[in-house]
Amino acid sequence: MTLHSPSHLAGIVGFRGYSGAELVRLLLHHPSVEPVLLEHRDDAEPDPEPLNHPSLIDRIRFSPEAVREAGLAAVFLATPPEVSLDLAPALIEAGVKVIDLSGAFRLRTPENYQRWYGASHPRPDLLASAAYGLPEFHRATLAGAPFISNPGCYPTAANLALQPLIEAGVVDRSAGIVCDAKSGVSGAGRKASLSNSFCEVAENFSAYAVLQHRHVPEILLTSGIDEDELSFTAHLLPINRGILETIYFRSRNLRSTRDLLAIYASRYAEEPFLRILPAGSLPRLQAVNYTNFCDIGAVLDPKTGRGVVVSAIDNLIKGAAGQAVQNLNLALGLPETAGLL
Amino acid sequence: MTLHSPSHLAGIVGFRGYSGAELVRLLLHHPSVEPVLLEHRDDAEPDPEPLNHPSLIDRIRFSPEAVREAGLAAVFLATPPEVSLDLAPALIEAGVKVIDLSGAFRLRTPENYQRWYGASHPRPDLLASAAYGLPEFHRATLAGAPFISNPGCYPTAANLALQPLIEAGVVDRSAGIVCDAKSGVSGAGRKASLSNSFCEVAENFSAYAVLQHRHVPEILLTSGIDEDELSFTAHLLPINRGILETIYFRSRNLRSTRDLLAIYASRYAEEPFLRILPAGSLPRLQAVNYTNFCDIGAVLDPKTGRGVVVSAIDNLIKGAAGQAVQNLNLALGLPETAGLL
Amino acid sequence: MTLHSPSHLAGIVGFRGYSGAELVRLLLHHPSVEPVLLEHRDDAEPDPEPLNHPSLIDRIRFSPEAVREAGLAAVFLATPPEVSLDLAPALIEAGVKVIDLSGAFRLRTPENYQRWYGASHPRPDLLASAAYGLPEFHRATLAGAPFISNPGCYPTAANLALQPLIEAGVVDRSAGIVCDAKSGVSGAGRKASLSNSFCEVAENFSAYAVLQHRHVPEILLTSGIDEDELSFTAHLLPINRGILETIYFRSRNLRSTRDLLAIYASRYAEEPFLRILPAGSLPRLQAVNYTNFCDIGAVLDPKTGRGVVVSAIDNLIKGAAGQAVQNLNLALGLPETAGLL
Amino acid sequence: MTLHSPSHLAGIVGFRGYSGAELVRLLLHHPSVEPVLLEHRDDAEPDPEPLNHPSLIDRIRFSPEAVREAGLAAVFLATPPEVSLDLAPALIEAGVKVIDLSGAFRLRTPENYQRWYGASHPRPDLLASAAYGLPEFHRATLAGAPFISNPGCYPTAANLALQPLIEAGVVDRSAGIVCDAKSGVSGAGRKASLSNSFCEVAENFSAYAVLQHRHVPEILLTSGIDEDELSFTAHLLPINRGILETIYFRSRNLRSTRDLLAIYASRYAEEPFLRILPAGSLPRLQAVNYTNFCDIGAVLDPKTGRGVVVSAIDNLIKGAAGQAVQNLNLALGLPETAGLL
Repeated sequence: MTLHSPSHLAGIVGFRGYSGAELVRLLLHHPSVEPVLLEHRDDAEPDPEPLNHPSLIDRIRFSPEAVREAGLAAVFLATPPEVSLDLAPALIEAGVKVIDLSGAFRLRTPENYQRWYGASHPRPDLLASAAYGLPEFHRATLAGAPFISNPGCYPTAANLALQPLIEAGVVDRSAGIVCDAKSGVSGAGRKASLSNSFCEVAENFSAYAVLQHRHVPEILLTSGIDEDELSFTAHLLPINRGILETIYFRSRNLRSTRDLLAIYASRYAEEPFLRILPAGSLPRLQAVNYTNFCDIGAVLDPKTGRGVVVSAIDNLIKGAAGQAVQNLNLALGLPETAGLL
Repeated sequence: MTLHSPSHLAGIVGFRGYSGAELVRLLLHHPSVEPVLLEHRDDAEPDPEPLNHPSLIDRIRFSPEAVREAGLAAVFLATPPEVSLDLAPALIEAGVKVIDLSGAFRLRTPENYQRWYGASHPRPDLLASAAYGLPEFHRATLAGAPFISNPGCYPTAANLALQPLIEAGVVDRSAGIVCDAKSGVSGAGRKASLSNSFCEVAENFSAYAVLQHRHVPEILLTSGIDEDELSFTAHLLPINRGILETIYFRSRNLRSTRDLLAIYASRYAEEPFLRILPAGSLPRLQAVNYTNFCDIGAVLDPKTGRGVVVSAIDNLIKGAAGQAVQNLNLALGLPETAGLL
Repeated sequence: MTLHSPSHLAGIVGFRGYSGAELVRLLLHHPSVEPVLLEHRDDAEPDPEPLNHPSLIDRIRFSPEAVREAGLAAVFLATPPEVSLDLAPALIEAGVKVIDLSGAFRLRTPENYQRWYGASHPRPDLLASAAYGLPEFHRATLAGAPFISNPGCYPTAANLALQPLIEAGVVDRSAGIVCDAKSGVSGAGRKASLSNSFCEVAENFSAYAVLQHRHVPEILLTSGIDEDELSFTAHLLPINRGILETIYFRSRNLRSTRDLLAIYASRYAEEPFLRILPAGSLPRLQAVNYTNFCDIGAVLDPKTGRGVVVSAIDNLIKGAAGQAVQNLNLALGLPETAGLL
Repeated sequence: MTLHSPSHLAGIVGFRGYSGAELVRLLLHHPSVEPVLLEHRDDAEPDPEPLNHPSLIDRIRFSPEAVREAGLAAVFLATPPEVSLDLAPALIEAGVKVIDLSGAFRLRTPENYQRWYGASHPRPDLLASAAYGLPEFHRATLAGAPFISNPGCYPTAANLALQPLIEAGVVDRSAGIVCDAKSGVSGAGRKASLSNSFCEVAENFSAYAVLQHRHVPEILLTSGIDEDELSFTAHLLPINRGILETIYFRSRNLRSTRDLLAIYASRYAEEPFLRILPAGSLPRLQAVNYTNFCDIGAVLDPKTGRGVVVSAIDNLIKGAAGQAVQNLNLALGLPETAGLL
């Protein structure tokens, strides 16, 4: 009798990408879920630098039928939006739980999708039904959910930092909120690209998608703030992984850094993956990389109410694969932290 | 008759540091100034990893008398503030032009110095008389100046981006201004330090000095904006050199990115070291590193007036040694771009 | 009843260093050993950038008595040689198993120690009695051993690559063997140092300790080859972690890359941490970092018998903390791979 | 009257690549040559991240006629071998000096080209007539040469280190020579490629082309040593630029490091771009990057005659564009160091 025999199998489409590879790695350490690599037709071409997947993991050719026959409880789609749009419907109909890591089902309405992704959405019904997988704020709808849309990496770090302040009503929204976000290169996915080649990124730094990043609407949807109130800029850091966001706001009522930190301490008292740093400390990427933690630090100027909050996550873990496993745990009724600590 | 015979000698105290080494390199290519290395007593200990200074350069032991006897027209102090405070007075009295790259003489009043540098200033008279060396905004007072305080690296990038907007009156200052600044590691100087060791910096990123960086008052002094109106945060980039700042504001009157860029194009039309990028382009550090250029790009949201300006410089060149040479040229009546293009 | 209740406690002196921090991390995932942080007097000064140790881990002030009273089964010394020389004897006498990660007890004879470490050894008796902890070649003497000297990082990668060839008698030793070794910066330890500061290491690469690295005698002792037969050079890679060594030799008898690889496949058939790559593939640091694996690839030119073997390990895991846990498992009679896969 | 008016125009095909961009940069500082950008048909697609070329430089569409009409004295081909094979003949026939930076004309015989480049050479006559542009060893044939084949980056560093020893007859060639070479990523050219993308290279290190790199025959041709005597392995460093090679040999006759260094000091006494480091010092890439220097350091074990030589160059300067300008200077009868110091 094995004590930790896996009771569930979870398939991974896109296991050759960075998020997909992290899913494999995390599930190999999961006490009750085992990964199955799903070969999708777009993966036909040989992989020039294969990531290290232990040879013992099962691989099967993807099809909804094969997924059912293999008895998979869930499938992760670590794929581009267009592939997710293609694969998700049949899986959902087949009763397999789907956790989609792409942006295909994050925005709720076809109009919003059209605006930010520049295409009409083929399945508005599924768009409306997808549960948005930010457990710290949507846990109730994620428990047992058949279809989960995993949040973007930038919105995860932004919402975990902003949302407690919005809920507490301490942000003077009329003064505007700035979110200055910086991400490692793995956020762009695993593919040949001149702009992500070593010599173009190393010893370099730049801003992109100023005021128009497609992750912005995810922040607005979760927080309820208006587009006009938020200025969001993304930057490309010359590192492999990690996202750090520096958020600026004007507070109502807050009198000190201690008051500001107390909001987080209270809101996240029961959250296993949120770490609130003491006054005087600020997040560093090295402290969160390779973990599912989100670290938050903050400073408030008592004289003027200017507030600065810094949040940090590993874009591939809490910003992608780790949060997806957290969502899988919720969907399957497993302990939420299983395989993640 | 040699056409390019140097007519001036300039000494460098602190030539073993990163800014000092850049001064040497720049002056070796200067058509009419030649560097002289000034050995200061604090440099007595052997240098574990000597920077590459051609052996032909003159070296003399520093003293005000030696400086005079050697016929040096000017001395650069690429030294910590306390060393600059010690060395500058005698040189100035000896009639040698001084360009100080430290923060010792940047803040004008002893009260301001006390607040931000945590020490009383020993020479308020010199503090008041130092010309602040940001040529694009103080050129008149720099021409022929006997004593120049070279700006900090962060304020250089901030003021070059902010000042034209303040002058043009297009910033709604009551809504606050955010300056999110990121710097390469050489900004911290050349010294043994755990926090700047490779393993603590590489694959890492963090914020520091939130709302309280000692470069803040330089921005306020130049721009005239109030401390309460500006939120400034510094970050440490895992690269050798370069500063990029992302500045957020709410505009009055501006209707488009084109309008916003036109302010810079007009203000900087005659400036040799300012490059305004076309709409749709944003600065990258690789484009400014090893040059004295400051690149500026901008975006304005016409609907809401939210503006974002990005400026980039090489912290060791336009943010230190290059600007110091630019100031030397002004002080000596040479062409301002000599040795810098 | 908890099924995985730890049956052993293991103390770590030097837990603030890079190897010590990895020991903590590994033991937190070990099924039957739990870490205890041992505060040594030299750690008195506050840590500027504390590594992330979960607050729940026990910390006690180090002394042999405290170690005994706390019931520690073993103590890891992740300390400089002089500290290990100071601490090891009393622990051994107190019957606590000691695994020393420094070079203090690796060389067997006081003469050899004097030559390579430049000091006389205070405890030749312990030097002679220490078991050299390279399990793949000394497993028998490590089982139950009271005192284990953990190998250096460079010798681990070198011996795992060289030793099977020496044993198989396929190396023409008279033609000489070259070992060109490259290491990430963490190999130098966690301390303030100008030569390891970011700006001196990034975008740089250099050789050091040519023909005279103190890790050389460990290679000679294990393999039995003569000093005159081996040329070893170390290089500093601008990365955090990982060692890759490229070894050149002339073969006797070997006819093909396949023959060469077959020697490794046979010798390491039962080894859990050795991975022999197929012909045409070569090790990469990304594939071994954060693991206890040693990857080996090889090429043989059939016409001339020139052979090249490449081995790669994580210097902090298989080259330090991971191998130390492997040795702890052997010393305590636990499964050798416990906590390492 | 301008004193430094350029007397020559030199065209650059492939100015968007890394070597081509360095050519532009170097020629902009050249006292008597001015660059002209030659748009070749393969450059038609828009450049996603344009390198910084001052807008004032002339650009013309490439054709042999246009080159003649524009009065270009020379054309640099910073292009792949197949493009160089296509463009060089007509230019040479038109009497324009050609300096080819590709491997198309380096190997002298069609048989050798076929073996290492895997294709038959279309112009054996030009292959035989190309002057091999390593000035330190072929200066006589380069003076005034109409057609120069610029050496590969690895062979430049290897030959500058090996050749003086071969000439001096101090190498025991029967014992074999090892050349362990490490290069920054720009050596692979500027193009989209998964294997050179940031996340595959950063925090990684690997060997490639073991015993079969196509730069090997260039080393053999110059030095006259046999293929069986040389083991050459290339490695990819996670940095932008620079090559460092560590060369191992057994000496005849040499008695000390001093003797070994004296060979270089004597051979290179008049060479402007060779720097021989004193005993105890070894080359670092930071010391040669952005320069045309080759630094050489060496160690000899007097007891056994084992020798180790380390050479370092900037792969884009002395290994490509800088050496090409050095060759242009020779071809045009200009001072050899013009534009390079």
